[in-house]
Amino acid sequence: MVKSWLYVKARAEMKAIFKEREKPGAELREVDIPIIGDQEVLIKVQAVSMCGTDLHIYEWDNWAQRRIKPPLIFGHEFAGEIVKVGSKVTTLKIGDFVSAESHIVCGKCFQCRTGSSHLCQKVTIIGLDRDGCFAEYISLPESCIWKTSRKIPLEVASFQEALGNAVYATLVAEIVAKSVAVFGCGAHGLFTIGIAKAAGAKIVLAIDPNRYRLSLARKMGADMVFDPREVNVVKEILRLTFEAGVDVVIEMSGNPKAIKDGFNVLKKGGRFSVFGIPTVDTSLNFAEDIIFKGATVLGISGRRIFDTWYKMEGLLESGALNIKPVITHRMQFTEFNAAFELLKSGKCGKIVLFL
Amino acid sequence: MVKSWLYVKARAEMKAIFKEREKPGAELREVDIPIIGDQEVLIKVQAVSMCGTDLHIYEWDNWAQRRIKPPLIFGHEFAGEIVKVGSKVTTLKIGDFVSAESHIVCGKCFQCRTGSSHLCQKVTIIGLDRDGCFAEYISLPESCIWKTSRKIPLEVASFQEALGNAVYATLVAEIVAKSVAVFGCGAHGLFTIGIAKAAGAKIVLAIDPNRYRLSLARKMGADMVFDPREVNVVKEILRLTFEAGVDVVIEMSGNPKAIKDGFNVLKKGGRFSVFGIPTVDTSLNFAEDIIFKGATVLGISGRRIFDTWYKMEGLLESGALNIKPVITHRMQFTEFNAAFELLKSGKCGKIVLFL
Amino acid sequence: MVKSWLYVKARAEMKAIFKEREKPGAELREVDIPIIGDQEVLIKVQAVSMCGTDLHIYEWDNWAQRRIKPPLIFGHEFAGEIVKVGSKVTTLKIGDFVSAESHIVCGKCFQCRTGSSHLCQKVTIIGLDRDGCFAEYISLPESCIWKTSRKIPLEVASFQEALGNAVYATLVAEIVAKSVAVFGCGAHGLFTIGIAKAAGAKIVLAIDPNRYRLSLARKMGADMVFDPREVNVVKEILRLTFEAGVDVVIEMSGNPKAIKDGFNVLKKGGRFSVFGIPTVDTSLNFAEDIIFKGATVLGISGRRIFDTWYKMEGLLESGALNIKPVITHRMQFTEFNAAFELLKSGKCGKIVLFL
Amino acid sequence: MVKSWLYVKARAEMKAIFKEREKPGAELREVDIPIIGDQEVLIKVQAVSMCGTDLHIYEWDNWAQRRIKPPLIFGHEFAGEIVKVGSKVTTLKIGDFVSAESHIVCGKCFQCRTGSSHLCQKVTIIGLDRDGCFAEYISLPESCIWKTSRKIPLEVASFQEALGNAVYATLVAEIVAKSVAVFGCGAHGLFTIGIAKAAGAKIVLAIDPNRYRLSLARKMGADMVFDPREVNVVKEILRLTFEAGVDVVIEMSGNPKAIKDGFNVLKKGGRFSVFGIPTVDTSLNFAEDIIFKGATVLGISGRRIFDTWYKMEGLLESGALNIKPVITHRMQFTEFNAAFELLKSGKCGKIVLFL
Repeated sequence: MVKSWLYVKARAEMKAIFKEREKPGAELREVDIPIIGDQEVLIKVQAVSMCGTDLHIYEWDNWAQRRIKPPLIFGHEFAGEIVKVGSKVTTLKIGDFVSAESHIVCGKCFQCRTGSSHLCQKVTIIGLDRDGCFAEYISLPESCIWKTSRKIPLEVASFQEALGNAVYATLVAEIVAKSVAVFGCGAHGLFTIGIAKAAGAKIVLAIDPNRYRLSLARKMGADMVFDPREVNVVKEILRLTFEAGVDVVIEMSGNPKAIKDGFNVLKKGGRFSVFGIPTVDTSLNFAEDIIFKGATVLGISGRRIFDTWYKMEGLLESGALNIKPVITHRMQFTEFNAAFELLKSGKCGKIVLFL
Repeated sequence: MVKSWLYVKARAEMKAIFKEREKPGAELREVDIPIIGDQEVLIKVQAVSMCGTDLHIYEWDNWAQRRIKPPLIFGHEFAGEIVKVGSKVTTLKIGDFVSAESHIVCGKCFQCRTGSSHLCQKVTIIGLDRDGCFAEYISLPESCIWKTSRKIPLEVASFQEALGNAVYATLVAEIVAKSVAVFGCGAHGLFTIGIAKAAGAKIVLAIDPNRYRLSLARKMGADMVFDPREVNVVKEILRLTFEAGVDVVIEMSGNPKAIKDGFNVLKKGGRFSVFGIPTVDTSLNFAEDIIFKGATVLGISGRRIFDTWYKMEGLLESGALNIKPVITHRMQFTEFNAAFELLKSGKCGKIVLFL
Repeated sequence: MVKSWLYVKARAEMKAIFKEREKPGAELREVDIPIIGDQEVLIKVQAVSMCGTDLHIYEWDNWAQRRIKPPLIFGHEFAGEIVKVGSKVTTLKIGDFVSAESHIVCGKCFQCRTGSSHLCQKVTIIGLDRDGCFAEYISLPESCIWKTSRKIPLEVASFQEALGNAVYATLVAEIVAKSVAVFGCGAHGLFTIGIAKAAGAKIVLAIDPNRYRLSLARKMGADMVFDPREVNVVKEILRLTFEAGVDVVIEMSGNPKAIKDGFNVLKKGGRFSVFGIPTVDTSLNFAEDIIFKGATVLGISGRRIFDTWYKMEGLLESGALNIKPVITHRMQFTEFNAAFELLKSGKCGKIVLFL
Repeated sequence: MVKSWLYVKARAEMKAIFKEREKPGAELREVDIPIIGDQEVLIKVQAVSMCGTDLHIYEWDNWAQRRIKPPLIFGHEFAGEIVKVGSKVTTLKIGDFVSAESHIVCGKCFQCRTGSSHLCQKVTIIGLDRDGCFAEYISLPESCIWKTSRKIPLEVASFQEALGNAVYATLVAEIVAKSVAVFGCGAHGLFTIGIAKAAGAKIVLAIDPNRYRLSLARKMGADMVFDPREVNVVKEILRLTFEAGVDVVIEMSGNPKAIKDGFNVLKKGGRFSVFGIPTVDTSLNFAEDIIFKGATVLGISGRRIFDTWYKMEGLLESGALNIKPVITHRMQFTEFNAAFELLKSGKCGKIVLFL
């Protein structure tokens, strides 16, 4: 249990990782604890996890410069405990262990009204469009809260939002008994490997130019790993599959070369999930890559709300998915600068910061 | 390797379990080794497995009396090795380890021409409509042969046809991360439990009035088992699911009470696979059981040809599915009378007979 | 435009068709105009349409006695104009022409959170669980309002809720180029015929024992109609389809005999939508009706919110669906007693009452 | 009825449009009437239709030089009457009116065995890999013949193969009540427009830089047409759809600019069918075009065998699809040189040559 609300109220401020100005870096600041509306809850954040998007904001790259308007508390992956509930909240109570969907959706557009609110036209994203979770407290609407079983360890609970991306990308179409190639073994790719195996994939091949990540890929259950700097990935996978290719490609790297390779190893009639975001345009031979192949290409954005969360819950609670090997670093919240350097180095899986 | 073909040719006859007349029982007989056509192969049978349908034929019950026209070699589950190939066969060769789809389809009806040949209007079934596999040799068209990896043990390879029923019933719609109730823990139900777990089901509940089978259900991975003679299954499952019911029901018993119970524990919007064949009509409350529930009820007949076989191959070759606990008895081919008695007793999982 | 809100406020009361006590009938009463909450709107009802459910309530049959708690304004099909909007309503304004989804859903249960809110565990239904639309005004939450184009005639707009049932039942799986049998030619069945034809069905067969309704079925585009009192429907349809049966059966009658006939004329691999609610249990031969047939049976409850509404809008606005022949009677709101008698007689399609 | 088979046998030769050498053009030649195998039929060709692929072969462009090995009778769209049947043919007889699937598939590869034989790994295509239909007679295996109702006019029956491409591209995912943009109004695009309307599309927008084709597009039912040389197609379509885009894009042009425009007008969560074959690589912004959009991109190759043919039959026989406006020219078989010039000019829809 966290400290009581009375105590919380006694101190008006909280620590937060704050991007104050339009420049690289971030600082730990004391800011006001947020006020909650009558359909919102206040959460005492207990652990946060770091994502590539946070690094973009921290480094203030081109994307961040276009997208982010400081001042902002960033961060969107967390778990914690509810310490206050608004008067109209009906499904949550003080003491509940929770995480949250990072997309706060309008509920009123075409996509929201037809079961695709993850593609909401008026979405507001935590840690991008409004203050995020890199703080001692965060206030959020009841509608985006995901109540989490205490059986899920805090560190795992903290990155459910990111795990959800991989659950969606992997399970968006049939995976059981399929041959699968996962391009990119950052945290999302590593999750994907574990999810595919938990869902009964026949064989999972993992591709990444980072040796450290390939070793994590093996721990997550990859049957074979490939370093594209050392082998011709396309040739090898085609050889392994008797030139037929794999049933499913899941692209988590955002690398245009990987995308091309992915199409080249895709079986006729295969499925290609695209999640990794390229920073430049990617050139395809539509005839060979998509048309004659009869390919199904699926753009993956966010996670289905809350279909994906229920699937993730099933995989975690049953024990079918053991996600722990992905967590390579556990640090204190205040060590965030070191954590960002580590993330930048690529020598990590998932980094969890505890408060 | 089996004995050479020259040797085979030298002896004109083979042993077969033969139903000569319209009465109970069967006898071991010497019959001619079948001749093959130019698109057929001859297979040396190495192991056969027994199915409820075979018991019906053996016991000569009402169904068998209507359906079967002796004289007939029965049996439809087997594995063996190809010893002769017709002149127009292109994908198989002597020495291949194989099993077979038991439905020999016309390839020309609406269902065959639209990817549903398992529902062929003019199907001929091995061991029912033409001589089966309870014999030393069987001849079959290339089109129904399933080449099997030598990595699959002979005993498992022998009942792929039956395992395919369960693969189809289980994987016909999404199962990953779902809660599943399996009614009936005969061999098909036991397979289903293993398949559901291999495909990442959240929780699998097994129901059967036979204690022996429930113990096998646990070995196959059932999270909880229920004996309907001892507990109110509906009440228990609803309690466990906070009155919401399970996402998926798979009915493998053919018992009308089980079918009713299945609908009563099905979640709103859930999926109900029906495979077990009731011998009497079943009465439903369509309003509560199907309509208000928004249920999806799927009739399962045979296996998809060959989609289901590829899925089964994936599950077996990857090791995701360990089917061995289902095999409770390994006997000699000549012990078939004892095997049928055992099957009748219900104190068995799958019985494999070796030749 | 309707009269101004100032005028509305001036009169504190409105006329409503009111079920005051637990007995047959209803009376026109003056009741208070409802107050709206900040996420609600007040609608001036301009037309209502009558449904079998309303007749159950009016007649106070067994179902109504169990389900309904007077006092209650009943009715759930209407169209009208918004005259007042709550302070937090963002997508609607005074003067909007609207109808409404009759299921007010919780938004928080499993079904609501996974795109199946039409199966909400805590649904409240207009005209059943709370005051309905048989009144001059109705207040409703923004979340259940369906803004309707002024291109849709008022009389058609009034029964979109019911039309949605048929749109859902028909389009829940593929219909284009399929052969379709529609059992029951009440309003829902008549809608179904028109929808199936608008969506490119190959042939639509309509079955009903009421001659008047069969003539309406023809007007809606049925290619052939069958009176089960005069012909053996199963035999005729099998003959027409060369014993193969139809691709799709849509059951709108709730008659157990029709359900049985429906399964008997369903093609192997066919789809069976069940919407009509039988008042007694229905006995099926699961082996022949569902299992060997490889049937897909889909329970249809309500309408998908709002997927179905968008589809209905597309069909109505494009002109692909001409629904007018179903409207057989246009009456004054105050003539409701006569309208109920007419509905009871079965000599009608849809009855619209204007205010 | 065609002339009797005795007469046919009397003359050993037939006229055929023949590509003798690796150079542009073709000539009318007398060649031997083909011999049929026991699972084949001989067809007296009564009408053929011309396709872009035939023009490539005629003009001997880069693609043709790589793909085609003369000598060859080309052509793959036709209708005619069976004049001879092999001894093992069971579903066809002399006098049957037929067309044919142009992909002769192996029936034994993974794709063939899993219901996707249109993606067969060892396909042989009529008029490309073996002699085609631009001749008085063609011999084909029973398995690729499509028996056609005499209700379908000869000229329409002749191009069912091509119409099938459009049926597949359009109906591969839901189209009813959807907004649809068709890029490219050659024969395939024109077919698509008609099919989409027949299947109940809400609105169909057609895009082509050729005024003549846009006028045909209107005749086929396009609600609006756009000439990209005159308007900014993306801007216009976004304006029309209130910046939301269309539900479905069907790309029939193969023009990279059209592909890009297609993604730009696709709604979030929309479906994009790709059929037109670009001759150069196409560059996409994966982030905006596919990922954030949650797009489903479907490569369309050939037609589903024979699912698509049954759908086409349903649309044609019911009269839901009137395809006649696409047929702009009816010529004699011997006028093929003039027909190819016409096809090259783009001032035509479908050209049918009669024998």
